[in-house]
Amino acid sequence: MGSLSDIGLAAGINILSAIGFLLAFAFLRLQPINDRVYFPKWYLKGTRSTPRHSSNVVSKFVNLDCMTYVRFLNWMPAALKMPEPELIHHAGLDSAVYVRIYLLGLKIFAPIALFGLGVLVPVNWTSQTLEKNMALTFNDIDKLSISNVGKGSERLLAHVTMAYVFTFWTFYILYREYKVVATMRLNFLALEERRPDQFTVLVRNVPPDPDESVSEHVEHFFSVNHRDYLSHQVVYNANNLADVVGKKKGLQNWLVYYENKYARNSNKRPTMKTGFWGLWGKRVDAIDYYTNEIAKLSIEEESERERIMNDQKAIVPAAFVSFKTRWGAAVCAQTQQSSNPTIWLTEWAPEPRDVYWSNLSIPFFSLTVRRLIMAVALFFLTFFFMIPIAFVQSLANIEGIERVVPFLRPLIEKKVVKAFIQGFLPGIALKIFLIILPTILMAMSKIEGHTSLSGLNRRSAAKYYLFLFINVFLGSLITGTAFQQLNSFIHQSANSIPETIGESIPMKASFFITYIMVDGWAGIAAEILRLKALIMFHIKNSFLVKTEQDREQAMDPGSLDFSSSEPRIQLYFLLGLVYAVVTPILLPFILVFFSFSYLVFRHQIINVYNQEYESGARFWPDVHRRIIIALIVSQILLMGLMSTKHAANSTPLILVLPVLTIWFHFFCKSRFEPAFVKFPLQDAVVKDTLERATEPFLDLKSYLKDAYIHPVFHSGDQNFGSMEDDVEEKNPLVPTKRTSQRGSPSNSKLTSEHGNHS
Amino acid sequence: MGSLSDIGLAAGINILSAIGFLLAFAFLRLQPINDRVYFPKWYLKGTRSTPRHSSNVVSKFVNLDCMTYVRFLNWMPAALKMPEPELIHHAGLDSAVYVRIYLLGLKIFAPIALFGLGVLVPVNWTSQTLEKNMALTFNDIDKLSISNVGKGSERLLAHVTMAYVFTFWTFYILYREYKVVATMRLNFLALEERRPDQFTVLVRNVPPDPDESVSEHVEHFFSVNHRDYLSHQVVYNANNLADVVGKKKGLQNWLVYYENKYARNSNKRPTMKTGFWGLWGKRVDAIDYYTNEIAKLSIEEESERERIMNDQKAIVPAAFVSFKTRWGAAVCAQTQQSSNPTIWLTEWAPEPRDVYWSNLSIPFFSLTVRRLIMAVALFFLTFFFMIPIAFVQSLANIEGIERVVPFLRPLIEKKVVKAFIQGFLPGIALKIFLIILPTILMAMSKIEGHTSLSGLNRRSAAKYYLFLFINVFLGSLITGTAFQQLNSFIHQSANSIPETIGESIPMKASFFITYIMVDGWAGIAAEILRLKALIMFHIKNSFLVKTEQDREQAMDPGSLDFSSSEPRIQLYFLLGLVYAVVTPILLPFILVFFSFSYLVFRHQIINVYNQEYESGARFWPDVHRRIIIALIVSQILLMGLMSTKHAANSTPLILVLPVLTIWFHFFCKSRFEPAFVKFPLQDAVVKDTLERATEPFLDLKSYLKDAYIHPVFHSGDQNFGSMEDDVEEKNPLVPTKRTSQRGSPSNSKLTSEHGNHS
Repeated sequence: MGSLSDIGLAAGINILSAIGFLLAFAFLRLQPINDRVYFPKWYLKGTRSTPRHSSNVVSKFVNLDCMTYVRFLNWMPAALKMPEPELIHHAGLDSAVYVRIYLLGLKIFAPIALFGLGVLVPVNWTSQTLEKNMALTFNDIDKLSISNVGKGSERLLAHVTMAYVFTFWTFYILYREYKVVATMRLNFLALEERRPDQFTVLVRNVPPDPDESVSEHVEHFFSVNHRDYLSHQVVYNANNLADVVGKKKGLQNWLVYYENKYARNSNKRPTMKTGFWGLWGKRVDAIDYYTNEIAKLSIEEESERERIMNDQKAIVPAAFVSFKTRWGAAVCAQTQQSSNPTIWLTEWAPEPRDVYWSNLSIPFFSLTVRRLIMAVALFFLTFFFMIPIAFVQSLANIEGIERVVPFLRPLIEKKVVKAFIQGFLPGIALKIFLIILPTILMAMSKIEGHTSLSGLNRRSAAKYYLFLFINVFLGSLITGTAFQQLNSFIHQSANSIPETIGESIPMKASFFITYIMVDGWAGIAAEILRLKALIMFHIKNSFLVKTEQDREQAMDPGSLDFSSSEPRIQLYFLLGLVYAVVTPILLPFILVFFSFSYLVFRHQIINVYNQEYESGARFWPDVHRRIIIALIVSQILLMGLMSTKHAANSTPLILVLPVLTIWFHFFCKSRFEPAFVKFPLQDAVVKDTLERATEPFLDLKSYLKDAYIHPVFHSGDQNFGSMEDDVEEKNPLVPTKRTSQRGSPSNSKLTSEHGNHS
Repeated sequence: MGSLSDIGLAAGINILSAIGFLLAFAFLRLQPINDRVYFPKWYLKGTRSTPRHSSNVVSKFVNLDCMTYVRFLNWMPAALKMPEPELIHHAGLDSAVYVRIYLLGLKIFAPIALFGLGVLVPVNWTSQTLEKNMALTFNDIDKLSISNVGKGSERLLAHVTMAYVFTFWTFYILYREYKVVATMRLNFLALEERRPDQFTVLVRNVPPDPDESVSEHVEHFFSVNHRDYLSHQVVYNANNLADVVGKKKGLQNWLVYYENKYARNSNKRPTMKTGFWGLWGKRVDAIDYYTNEIAKLSIEEESERERIMNDQKAIVPAAFVSFKTRWGAAVCAQTQQSSNPTIWLTEWAPEPRDVYWSNLSIPFFSLTVRRLIMAVALFFLTFFFMIPIAFVQSLANIEGIERVVPFLRPLIEKKVVKAFIQGFLPGIALKIFLIILPTILMAMSKIEGHTSLSGLNRRSAAKYYLFLFINVFLGSLITGTAFQQLNSFIHQSANSIPETIGESIPMKASFFITYIMVDGWAGIAAEILRLKALIMFHIKNSFLVKTEQDREQAMDPGSLDFSSSEPRIQLYFLLGLVYAVVTPILLPFILVFFSFSYLVFRHQIINVYNQEYESGARFWPDVHRRIIIALIVSQILLMGLMSTKHAANSTPLILVLPVLTIWFHFFCKSRFEPAFVKFPLQDAVVKDTLERATEPFLDLKSYLKDAYIHPVFHSGDQNFGSMEDDVEEKNPLVPTKRTSQRGSPSNSKLTSEHGNHS
């Protein structure tokens, strides 16, 4: 592997598979039966419904209009057509900024690729070091890379100069992009309609008080210390209830399934076994069984609701405190309340959809211990994950299986099966691990105790990035497991580590080019096909759907999975920056990845994904920081590579770059990061004043009343907020003017329909 | 060097010199003529005045009461007698907490020394490794240290266990002390009388506005965005004026000197030369000359005052904004004002004495560039300071001097002079550098742009600690300059660095014992003698003092120099923690240092030092962090030492310690640090409520009117605040009730005399 023709072959295969995915997508998306898989966003917005207009039964399922097939690639320009402001309105700022990451990649790497191919490739190509040295085997890629430049050659100055040019160009683009995103966020927040989280602060670690309930204590504390205090909402520990509700819903699905079965074939009532997965146990009438079980769970649910409402212990020491003005909430979220900084912790309330309810009640000390344990666990996971996998692999061989399940021996001993197991098993443990890794990392983040889904996603992304950096990037450059690398790094000197890695960088270029094509090109093309969602939808559609509403529920639009997809993009930034100077021929492949991904994800967020929450591009500082890390890594590795080229006198020259980069990072951080963390008082005052002028009789209290109650209470339609009513009614702070728009906001109301109903 | 008797000799010499200093101190302090050198604090408090009661002229200068000489050590118990609350009241919280650092040293090291001497020394002593190995030369200190334990011996387990015990003991004491200091600070702030800084916030980077002056812009911005806004004080760029005033004061001193001279010998009017340092130039009548010069400067001063008052450009884009309540100030200081985080930067106003006026107007971008440059400069200063010094040393030889000043050749060629120069010159450049180093570091901190003296001191201390750690601690353990060390570290592997240093630790024990005695014991004894202040006072007293008020000014109480003395203490913490396990015999020497220093500094802060400002022990997080660093360094070096002892399997066991220590640091940081940075709203509300109840008619506006004006305006007694009066009078926000206590507070009023004059 490694010559240009090999790369060409790999490119061909991957381009073909990508085109295959695209063709399949182009065909499938035109079939009306798949409409809900490929355009769920529009269904959720209510602008599209199951096609019924056609009288032809077949055309309800298959598209017979040949002309549409001719224009099978027309989704591409369509994806680009929607202007950004409309995109933000349609899909939210998070999604709109997320696709800007790909655009950022294009902006950084397009000019770099131009310079790299225009300047460095000729410089490398015309140096004849590899050709003169007959002893070395080399390939075409190497001739285009820095490997072809002789040791101590003056041509290396071109590479150092280009490292400067590329660094400053990246600075410029990163700075501009940070500014644009910060402005977009501030505009978004400023233009946003009224939302409960603008007035609300999440208070955690309410200290216990022997004489008062949590609710009374919160009330007293904030009405004394904040003039703008309006009301609060205590948090119930409804995790049990949520479990019961979830279980009930699962059983209801099965009930519907059997009812459908019975309806189709009414001769025979369906039966089932009560044991594990229906494999053994007593055979019973399925419909009766599930009806009974559901009735039982309903009683349990009722008593659990009863318990939560009446038991003081079901109230956790946390609360959502609301204020009369945005100014009051901004002040409370940014200040320290008590002289003991571990109690009365205040922070911006996440928007109601974004709250991660289970973590609201963790005490301070427990939080710090959890973080220590998770940090140690992450270290071991990153460096030692191969040990348990190797152990599982050693067990999962033919002999091991035969020992555990001897009755399968005749089957296993068959040649075809044996070959399959022997070829397939060794890799499967690792593959399963890599597939569930994001889930493991998310679970670790949950244990760390973050209180919002967006926070959990950001933390998981950070962990995943570390894993990819160590195990994919460094792991591909250096042979051996991560732990062996770690061990050899500890035993190597600080300056020989970059040398070791730097030296192997040019040699691995062709490997990474293949990686980009497999993981990047073909992977993104698979993303647009949504194979899993397609299959799941059709299974549900066949077995569970009775009404149009059921079909609505069977539809799974999915959402951008920031925690696993952002770190993968970062890997491409890292590869691009590292190879920009060393092997510029890699850059066009990355450009193709970025532009293709931009197209695909823009299409997906327009037509498919339905965001779970809106954090207002809160993740951008993380994106920025990781690109900075990639930049510093590329500079240090270049330094190492240069010193193996006997151009050690360039070291101080390149050393300037990481120092400047670190400074640039801190400059940007102090310049822009507050816009993503804090809410400026000036903006709060402007919005408050405007609102007072346009809606002088707004009944904010009833607007906020049920905003922050556990979602499990919304579904039950129990007017759960009424418990707090008594307390609030007595609170003389607000002249509660009940106007016509009073009502209990439901989940759907929270998203966007609010606004200027005066 | 190195054997017990050598150490004994060094100890003897140093104890003798320390006793010499103490005796000199005991004698000098009893002389009435030195009273103002050794008890200035009491003069400043007004409870002591120049002794005049005695009719005997001699006894005004010399103490003739023999009995007092007998009790010459009675200052020691006297220093301990004052209880801590009184000490806080007398000398301020900063000083009281500063001496607690020495107490902390005692608390950490007394039990560690007990365990070390009781457990580790017997373990080391009874291992006969060194005696068996005839090839090695060793001394008695080595026999008591870990060097005497054989490689791979099981006895090393005792050392690892003790490392655990010592670490956990240090944790316990550090945690308790942090808690105590945080409580002391909070109590201090809560019980404090009304001070301008409680109501005031420093605003920097006021954005320019084409239509409004800085003052109007500040007024409008804060009256819109903060309901509690009361008034503000713009900052004048009075650096020029301060220069002129300072120059004038210097000339006045000379005038007084010549007038005194003339008064003593009225036959002849004193003359002087006008040139450089009075060495050449025209000879003129001195009194006339200085009277003229002062008159000229007075005119210049007047016009400068005029210019500042009328020129809009003399107003820098910064202001001190005051609020009606402490709550309002606390809110403003902790929140972000504008969506652009680089303008309207708010922070707690330092108390008026603590403001560093020159740095208030630095723009944001300039600040970040300054910090980058200073970070690079600090790096070069720390690692490359030997280069210019070696260069100066190479110039400063006999030949060099003869070439520059050939007419001195006959003098230099004399044998005595030549020997002196040859012996003295090579070291002098380094010694001068070390003496002016704290000044250099302070200048660097000033360039970084901190706005308070306390902040400057803390930043300088951090820089000085880095310098001492690299150049004294590591520099003593490893031969070669700091740069050579750095170079060798870069070329060494990460695990061999601790090994290299760890291996040399036991060998350097006797060196550090001597260091502790010279720098610690004798140095502290010299501190109490105040030789420099003694000489300066008597010079001034002879030449400049005419009135009692002049004598008051000639008195220089000095103050605790946090920026250079705290890092020195940290060096002892570092040595103690590093050697606790390795050579416990070093600990008693450290204990003597800590207890002696505690005694001396407690005496000094009671009787001598007059604090420049009060930061409320704001420095404690730094102290805590540096002890944590020392702990981590000691653990890593122990790990290195252990692996040279072929006890490599203890590495993971010891590796747990730094992880735990880092976690402990973050735990303490989040638990206590906010108490030192932020002001909790609850406490602000309590103080506000109390004040409203006790003093309902307080005219806060006139109280704050002149609190934050440049000190140079105080001296001139120009009612400088009146400029702002017009603007403020128009401000309808405050019902200004003018009560009887209206008046312009002067510098002295700001310290402590305020309070409950209702």
